[in-house]
Amino acid sequence: MTTATKETTTMKSVEEQCRYSYDARLVPQRFSSTEKNSILQTIAAAVVDKAEYILEENKKDIAYGHENNLNEGLIDRLTLNKDRLEGISKSILEIVTLDDPVGTVLEEWTRPNGLHIKKVRVPLGVFGMIYEARPNVTADAIAIAIKTGNALVLRGSASAYNSNFAITKVVKDSLNAHKVNHDFIQLLEDTNRESVKDFVQMKQYLSLVIPRGSAGLIQHAVNTATVPCIETGAGICHVYIDKDADLDKAVAIADNAKTHRPSVCNACETLLVHKDVAQAFLPKIARVLKEKSVELRVCEAAKKFLNTEALATDEDWATEYNDLILSIKVVESIEEAIEHIARYSTTHTESIVSENQEALDLFTASVDSSSVFTNASTRFADGGEYGFGAEIGISTQKLHARGPMGIKELSTYKFIVTGNGQIR
Amino acid sequence: MTTATKETTTMKSVEEQCRYSYDARLVPQRFSSTEKNSILQTIAAAVVDKAEYILEENKKDIAYGHENNLNEGLIDRLTLNKDRLEGISKSILEIVTLDDPVGTVLEEWTRPNGLHIKKVRVPLGVFGMIYEARPNVTADAIAIAIKTGNALVLRGSASAYNSNFAITKVVKDSLNAHKVNHDFIQLLEDTNRESVKDFVQMKQYLSLVIPRGSAGLIQHAVNTATVPCIETGAGICHVYIDKDADLDKAVAIADNAKTHRPSVCNACETLLVHKDVAQAFLPKIARVLKEKSVELRVCEAAKKFLNTEALATDEDWATEYNDLILSIKVVESIEEAIEHIARYSTTHTESIVSENQEALDLFTASVDSSSVFTNASTRFADGGEYGFGAEIGISTQKLHARGPMGIKELSTYKFIVTGNGQIR
Repeated sequence: MTTATKETTTMKSVEEQCRYSYDARLVPQRFSSTEKNSILQTIAAAVVDKAEYILEENKKDIAYGHENNLNEGLIDRLTLNKDRLEGISKSILEIVTLDDPVGTVLEEWTRPNGLHIKKVRVPLGVFGMIYEARPNVTADAIAIAIKTGNALVLRGSASAYNSNFAITKVVKDSLNAHKVNHDFIQLLEDTNRESVKDFVQMKQYLSLVIPRGSAGLIQHAVNTATVPCIETGAGICHVYIDKDADLDKAVAIADNAKTHRPSVCNACETLLVHKDVAQAFLPKIARVLKEKSVELRVCEAAKKFLNTEALATDEDWATEYNDLILSIKVVESIEEAIEHIARYSTTHTESIVSENQEALDLFTASVDSSSVFTNASTRFADGGEYGFGAEIGISTQKLHARGPMGIKELSTYKFIVTGNGQIR
Repeated sequence: MTTATKETTTMKSVEEQCRYSYDARLVPQRFSSTEKNSILQTIAAAVVDKAEYILEENKKDIAYGHENNLNEGLIDRLTLNKDRLEGISKSILEIVTLDDPVGTVLEEWTRPNGLHIKKVRVPLGVFGMIYEARPNVTADAIAIAIKTGNALVLRGSASAYNSNFAITKVVKDSLNAHKVNHDFIQLLEDTNRESVKDFVQMKQYLSLVIPRGSAGLIQHAVNTATVPCIETGAGICHVYIDKDADLDKAVAIADNAKTHRPSVCNACETLLVHKDVAQAFLPKIARVLKEKSVELRVCEAAKKFLNTEALATDEDWATEYNDLILSIKVVESIEEAIEHIARYSTTHTESIVSENQEALDLFTASVDSSSVFTNASTRFADGGEYGFGAEIGISTQKLHARGPMGIKELSTYKFIVTGNGQIR
């Protein structure tokens, strides 16, 4: 194995590294649950023990980022320190506590001809992860791969290469300590923009690619992929305040959904308000949001209750602001709210605030989003909040995994069929 | 609705028809189980009642096929008659007997903060089906769509357009009789070769596309798709005869796996034989296969037990013959058999014949195929044989659905989260 950084070696190709991982895929498949956890504990300790080395490598990336005028937000995501490494270590130990998803018998039955069929959960094989300047994803993804018995190919960004390399090296040293061949973990050396396209077409080696990061990155990956992808991310989430809402709850939930962390995918972008409560509710929520400097863009009907001339356009209803901006629309009925959501939602997460059970039932049955909340903030749509215990992403597609994903979603199944000589 | 054939009308675009289906997707989502079954019964009756009309339209396709020198196999697949229509009707009635997959609570739990989370099975929305000259797929797919609460866009081949149109018309008339808007079922009028590419990129409307047919069609669809696809089909299936095999079972299973229906994906293409039983087994199986005119292509070690000079090449191990040809390899050990399978299998279906439980366990644990059989023919790898009761296809990918698919695989889930004012 190379221990030098990519600048000083001949760069391995995407194909080569995917093949290494694929050829070694049986190594993690054969780990027992005990081995998995013991390896993860070694890695969790090593990430803290080797802090000095990792932080030194991380500094190179930060310096490179400053030289290249990366914005402060990106530099912040890129930056590691002792606290953050301890956070990474803690996350790995949390993965240790999760149940091993592999080997579970999902269903079993016997056919009239005597064939016994068992549907058993097994690892995927090799999965790929594409992500931007977040070195913690490197460690998380590796820990999840080990726990799920999968091989893994990581395609991090060039701007975090030294940090990712250092974390991967610490992992490989830990695997060496367990006398385990570490080829099943590969960090792509080729971080050119074009390598994303090559990577998502490695169908002969990869069973799945998860792109995480900006909408642009995700769309580029999904549109060029031949490997199955799970799309994550985009969230135009709605909170609907029903005519039978408890208005105190409504204010608290709308406020929290918008302002608790406006940059994330499960933050609220559009507030829908039933006309019967518009007069009572809108001035209240506007006061709260004004204090937090939230910009409002509102429909014609909402204007008269709000001191603003900023009209929402059709584009506003279709925009994920990821910012302290909220569009507001007054609706004639719950049905109109449901129709608005059907038209503009990215089917990530929506919430209704109402004390009327009929309205709650209609909303949860009719809204086709991966998470539909009643009387709670959309901010809870998250694997951690659902108790899945590992951060993989929130799927916005309907196949395989939908909504917050747990480690189970990184497995597949096979049918083991036991006969005693049956032929057709 | 148009009732003329595509030649005499202005053709609707792929985008337009996908949009119609998408816009009407809530119609099938709102069917109760009783309604679904009652509609299916009407359709099953209508397919027989309107046989004359359907067969007349089918004759146009057959005549067109002859004019264009379609091969006899294709013409046979294309051809409908009263018996086949009764078969179609019967298949629809079998779908009536299946449990409604929609609405099932898959899991539910309560979080420490009081949020109650329910994971509920729901329809996908709209799915697409691409297929070749088999009008029965038109009826099957529609019946499955109705049962699963999904909207459906069908992209059949030009050579079966009149037949597909006739079946679709009979379905739409049945939906009319139930006063149901039938826009959720669309048969693409544009059957040009390029329309496949347009179709698999209708991401804003389609949640899934299933391509069925030749390997070429499937690869074209998968490689150009941005809509998630389920790949079906390709099967290089192996039967391994272990040193502890019951040789009578071994002969029956190998024969059945190869010759019962050689053109299908779960037929055996390569026979692996442990060296300890090669002398006893190979002449036996060769006699049986010779009677059925099976051509053998064998490894160097097998030659001395078989009266043949036809050596298998590396290409043979990697070929799905779909024909009365079998490649045979003698292996040193069960491990070598497993390695050969890991290298050449399409991970569709493999079988081991052995009376040794340790060998069976090693094989089923180590072989990474969607179906792994012990002491039974690979020909049982099939939704019908597994008791799923509807023919959708056999997935050769690992995501969402693997191996034989049931109607459940045409659903997704959503999380319904009940709160009482929770915020983060």
